[in-house]
This record gives sequence, structure tokens and C-alpha cells, in this order.
Amino acid sequence: MADEYLWKDVDPEFAQRVQDSFARQGLMQHLGARIAQLQPGRVEIRVPYRSELTQQHNYFHAGVSGAIADSACGYAAYTLTAAGSSVLTVEYKINLLAPAAGEELIARAHVVRSGKTLKICAGDVYVRKGETETHCATMLATIMCLPGKSDRAA
Amino acid sequence: MADEYLWKDVDPEFAQRVQDSFARQGLMQHLGARIAQLQPGRVEIRVPYRSELTQQHNYFHAGVSGAIADSACGYAAYTLTAAGSSVLTVEYKINLLAPAAGEELIARAHVVRSGKTLKICAGDVYVRKGETETHCATMLATIMCLPGKSDRAA
Amino acid sequence: MADEYLWKDVDPEFAQRVQDSFARQGLMQHLGARIAQLQPGRVEIRVPYRSELTQQHNYFHAGVSGAIADSACGYAAYTLTAAGSSVLTVEYKINLLAPAAGEELIARAHVVRSGKTLKICAGDVYVRKGETETHCATMLATIMCLPGKSDRAA
Amino acid sequence: MADEYLWKDVDPEFAQRVQDSFARQGLMQHLGARIAQLQPGRVEIRVPYRSELTQQHNYFHAGVSGAIADSACGYAAYTLTAAGSSVLTVEYKINLLAPAAGEELIARAHVVRSGKTLKICAGDVYVRKGETETHCATMLATIMCLPGKSDRAA
Repeated sequence: MADEYLWKDVDPEFAQRVQDSFARQGLMQHLGARIAQLQPGRVEIRVPYRSELTQQHNYFHAGVSGAIADSACGYAAYTLTAAGSSVLTVEYKINLLAPAAGEELIARAHVVRSGKTLKICAGDVYVRKGETETHCATMLATIMCLPGKSDRAA
Repeated sequence: MADEYLWKDVDPEFAQRVQDSFARQGLMQHLGARIAQLQPGRVEIRVPYRSELTQQHNYFHAGVSGAIADSACGYAAYTLTAAGSSVLTVEYKINLLAPAAGEELIARAHVVRSGKTLKICAGDVYVRKGETETHCATMLATIMCLPGKSDRAA
Repeated sequence: MADEYLWKDVDPEFAQRVQDSFARQGLMQHLGARIAQLQPGRVEIRVPYRSELTQQHNYFHAGVSGAIADSACGYAAYTLTAAGSSVLTVEYKINLLAPAAGEELIARAHVVRSGKTLKICAGDVYVRKGETETHCATMLATIMCLPGKSDRAA
Repeated sequence: MADEYLWKDVDPEFAQRVQDSFARQGLMQHLGARIAQLQPGRVEIRVPYRSELTQQHNYFHAGVSGAIADSACGYAAYTLTAAGSSVLTVEYKINLLAPAAGEELIARAHVVRSGKTLKICAGDVYVRKGETETHCATMLATIMCLPGKSDRAA
């Protein structure tokens, strides 16, 4: 709702910045995650099932849900920051709603409140089995914007 | 404090149960994590640095901190459950306190309140560089006990 | 979404149970809160502004937002429990999004996931000034159902 | 641990600033709360039992625990800010560990990580019955410092 306001003053390079940053996250590669959708204030990340991502019942591990929802929240915030800035996760909370049993895990995040220094984001995680998606986790995250801090390693 | 009360009625096979369950978690293997300490109500998990575990500044990704702290909380709870049961994470919240820059990430969790159905756990994550540990994250988690539910995949 | 499933098997006395329980909460009276809307899985609580509810800038104190959102989440869960049961809040997390400056504080909560033992609820708090509502807080809460436990003091 | 580092650079007027701010919080007066201990990075708030503070079983309402733990966290942070600044709560999460049945509710908070913009605080709530204290809640909170923002209403 009211997403249109998010578009004003959006850095035109936001998508490139997000993709470049994501590509530098070794963990996202290691999990097999990719950005599936990207617009100002909204990011979707998907990761296909494999046995390297499981907990003891062979479902997706909650750690995977947490990691991709956190990245989706952080990048949703990052779409709304100025060029030459960086973001970091201050904190998040995740509720696990259902076993993550399926072929693909999907995290969808959006910015709920876009402050200058802090952006509050909500993320939801769905597990897809065939054409059915089950809502398996929900996250609230606080992301901090660091203007003038490079997004690359020193 | 008062950890001694935790020992009473502890399943004597608790350590074997935890190690077996941990070995079935594909994600823990994939991250290179291992259980370093294990006692009733307390678990320590360690994971050495490698580039597959990084965020964009080459520090450990918050998703790794979240995953190992969650597993440490869950297994701390699992040490206090009866044989033949299983646990699942209901929710957790994590605050990231400092960049996780170092050679090894260490999650230490303990049970704060051991109810019959729910166990509330606290986890702290430290990053070690040489002999110095920096406190880089802190977690509160709610773990649910499922008596009579096997810890293995059906 | 899919709220209709919530109606099946709803205790026909749910509204009376909630109102009776709310009336026994001394704190809700002390804050001047009332239940403004009530349906299976959804509750709205409102409290008018007065100086007894403020923080140091004369806005509503975050403690009021937390208290009414927590009660709204708890009672949203309680609408879906069986007669003769009780609920308790296991935990909640709240993000404060904007100063709660206005004439009335409104908490709206709904059940996100209705498990047998645990119900996960989301609550949002709005502050009304004239006809404008501002989204000032968002909560995720875990509520536990206690079948057979009376909702009254012993 | 290492609390001594918190003392360096502490505003010598910190105690007066906290007491003045607390006195302006209408809610704290309305709940009957008082600051019982105050040092750099640490605050204790106490509130005696009365029926205006109860939930439906006549225990202290979780909203009271949340409100005084939030205030204790915020003021613990405020002790470490510069003169002429203000603080606000970004978010908190609280786990309720035991029924708050007793004569007095006590919230003790301390700063876990004192960043320039954000201070991460931990709070614990105890309920006292006679000489026995029971640990009934635990909180993690993120507090934001607003340098140059007055702590008074405009």
C-alpha cells in the first residue's frame, strides 16, 4: 500500500547496486539463492531445495529461512538508499509458522517504514511444493543505513 | 546460575541424541559447523571462516550467526527433553552487535526457562580473531518440545 | 485472506468470553482501553489520549502501544480457542514506526497461524488525529493456549 | 562485565537528566513506577502491585512488564548519551517466563552494546513475593540516540 511514494527519489542505479552487492555475498551463493524480483522497497529471493540446506527432518533449515529473509529485508531497504551508501541489519525477529517442506523457499520482503537512518522491513517466507505455496515464516527487521560507507570490503 | 537443577531428570542419552540430530542437519555440515561443547541446558557451536559464509564486506553473514545460534538454542533445549522426543524453533530474535570479522564464529546458548512444552533460550555469538573474542550477536529463542515425535525424517 | 477458515469450529460464546476476560484486566480499565471490534481471529482495541498515558514528549508511551497490541493479539487468539480454556502471551516483538502523537491509539490484531497449542498473531498500532490514522507500531506475538485452564483467578 | 568502560565520558548530569525525563512520563506515574537504581548503563525500575495493573488472573499484566522494562532499557541508554540529547525505542522483544504473581515488579536493564547512534539493551523483569524474586520476563531492546533533540515536549 502506498508503494508509489517509495519511488520518488529512488537512486536510478538501485537495481545494479543490489545485484552487485548480492553477488558479493558468499553465503547467498553457497545456499544457491538468487534475487527473483526487485523493485524499490521490495525484494524476492528464491532458493531451490537440496540436502545441504536441511534440518534433521529433511525440511529446509530455519537458518535458511532466516538468512534469505534477512537478505531480502536488507536489500529491500538498500533499494531506497542513496548511491555510495551501505546497509546493515541491526536486528530481526522471525516466527516459524509451518514446516518448510517443499521444492523451493521464497522470501518476500518490503519496507514498512523508510526513515532516514533506519528502515523497518517485513519479510515473509513461503515454501513451494508444485504450484502450492505455504506461508512458513514471517520476519520483522530493523535495517540501518550507512551513508558514505562503501558496500565493498576495504 | 542454578544450572545444577537442570541436571536432575536429564536423559542420560542426551549427548548422543544431540550429536545424532546435529549430524542429520545438512545445513550445519554445509556451513562447516560443529558442536564444541555440550552439557544439559548448554550448547556451543563453532564454525571456521571461509568465503562461502560471507556478506558483501567479507565478514561472516548475519545468516550464519542466526543459523548457528538458532541451532545452539534448539539443541540446548533438546538436551532437557525426554528420549523419543523432538524440538522445533517457534521463533527467535537476534540483535547484531558488531561486525563478525574474524577466523571463527562461536554460538553459545543456554536454557533460560525450561517449561514442559516451551523452553526459552538465550544465545550469544562471538567472533574470534586470534585469542580475542568479540561479542557480535545476541539471541532470544522460543523452542517447542514435541514429546513422542521422532527427530528423524519419516 | 482466507479468514473464512477461521470461522469453522469457532466457539459460539467467543465474544462473551473475550469481553468477560477483558473486563477482568485491571490494566485495560486503568489505561481506559475498550474493545472496539471483535470477530473470530481479529480484535481491535482503542484508547483515548490523556496525560496519564504519555512519555516525556507528551506522545502516547510505547508501553501503551505494547500493552494494547499485546492484549489485542492475545484476545484474537482467544476467539479461536475452545470454551473453558485460557491463553497466555509467550513473547512478542514490537517495532515503533512513528511518534504516537494523536487523540486515540488503535491496536488491530489478527491470527496469522492458528496452531493447536500456539497461535502466532500480528498486531498493528495506529494513532488517530482527526480523521487521519498513522501507522505507529507493528507487533508479532506468540500466544499459548491452555485448554482446561480457567481464565479466572483461582 | 567491563562496566567500567561505560563510565568514561559519561555526562556528569546523567542522573538528573534521567530523573527529570522519567518525571515527565505520565505513564510511569500512572503505573506507580519509580526509579530504584541508576548508574551509567544500568537502571532499575520498581512498581508495587495493585489491582489496576492486572490481567485476568490478577497477576501483573504483561503490558506492565513490557512498559517498565522498555523504560528501564531506554533510560539505561539515556545515561550514556550526551547532554541535550534524547532517546527513543526503535523496537523491543520480550519473553514472558513465568506468571508475574507477587507484591512488586522489578525491571533491571543494562546496555549491552553502546554504539554512537544505537544502543542495544537487555532488560530482565522479576516479581518479588516477600523476599523471593522470580525471573518473569526478559527483553532485548534497540534504542536510538537523537543528539540535539530535546527530551521535552516542543
